[in-house]
Amino acid sequence: MKVSISKKILDEDEKYAIQNSRLLAKQKKLCLNMISSPGSGKTTILMRTINELKDIIKIGVIEGDIQTDLDAEKIRASGAPAIQIETKGACHLSAAQVNRALKRLPLDDLDLIFIENVGNLVCPSAFELGETGKIAVLSVAEGDDKPAKYPAIFARAKVLLINKIDLLEVGAAVDFDIERVKADARKLNKKLEIFPISAKTGGGMAWWYDWLKRSIKNQR
Amino acid sequence: MKVSISKKILDEDEKYAIQNSRLLAKQKKLCLNMISSPGSGKTTILMRTINELKDIIKIGVIEGDIQTDLDAEKIRASGAPAIQIETKGACHLSAAQVNRALKRLPLDDLDLIFIENVGNLVCPSAFELGETGKIAVLSVAEGDDKPAKYPAIFARAKVLLINKIDLLEVGAAVDFDIERVKADARKLNKKLEIFPISAKTGGGMAWWYDWLKRSIKNQR
Repeated sequence: MKVSISKKILDEDEKYAIQNSRLLAKQKKLCLNMISSPGSGKTTILMRTINELKDIIKIGVIEGDIQTDLDAEKIRASGAPAIQIETKGACHLSAAQVNRALKRLPLDDLDLIFIENVGNLVCPSAFELGETGKIAVLSVAEGDDKPAKYPAIFARAKVLLINKIDLLEVGAAVDFDIERVKADARKLNKKLEIFPISAKTGGGMAWWYDWLKRSIKNQR
Repeated sequence: MKVSISKKILDEDEKYAIQNSRLLAKQKKLCLNMISSPGSGKTTILMRTINELKDIIKIGVIEGDIQTDLDAEKIRASGAPAIQIETKGACHLSAAQVNRALKRLPLDDLDLIFIENVGNLVCPSAFELGETGKIAVLSVAEGDDKPAKYPAIFARAKVLLINKIDLLEVGAAVDFDIERVKADARKLNKKLEIFPISAKTGGGMAWWYDWLKRSIKNQR
């Protein structure tokens, strides 16, 4: 029974997902939906990306949180326009919410829109927002068994950012086998691009920036 | 509309939650529902707790995962009986699933049953399983803004375990203000017991063990 109810909600929201997808395609904008557990570092990744690329790529952000606008404040401090959506308890963003937020962003001036979904490795991966692609983020502190245990997002993402790799260098504080994650994730998704990064130190981020630049070019 | 649908599912499952609650009360068993993001260390906390207390407390575990029985295997290796529930995509355990699992555990021989919920800081906090209480786990790697951003579980838990405090000691690898978390969480929940621990090193775990012993005594 639960399946059919979920399906019904999906169907209703799918109209907005299709609208979003058409709007983005018409305006030739890249729109990336970032999905991860709470605290994997999505906001920090966005802040560093906005800062490093600000002279060549114009970025806007739609921030999803259950409560507070802490993240949109941080993004605005990095110099990018940000629209905060408070879901008030809901565990994922809906396409309808993203539709309203897209209309409030200065789309004409932007090259790239990031959607930072609610921190949740499970539910957001089931809801299409009309985005160009999904980006999965996994922090090394979360453990290397996550693609096996939570396969949906790893199967559906275009890119997996393995964040906080700086923690692997400080006296082996964290046990995390990057090769295991790569192998498990690629079993689910042959085309997945995987970049180990540290949004804190900037390590490995150049590969991610290159991917963004290529993807924006392909979108035009 | 979504609210009423969620409510309907809750109502249906509530019958099982009430059954579970009555069964546990009748048999005077403590049953704790552990809720956190993926990778905060729930399984490691359980393994160490089972090991350290095995001569004085008999523990059984109900393991919830979207996919795989990796965690139940680990728990069984620690010497405790464990029942794995694979939710096959669902983002939280249901009381009906827990009801079936309770019947498969050797309840008469146990003092304490842990339910390790699906790794998700959001959804499991909304679903009553008939447990005696909820335990929230937050790893310091997830950041100190989580009680503000994801208030539901912090408002409803009896205990908050702040895990991986060993990461705070290795060259300030992680920025995490324990006092901020304590203050934000206690704003939501005055009675919340908060124990900073490292399940990896065992640091701080004695407070948690004492709380468990006291709670089992009170249950009898």
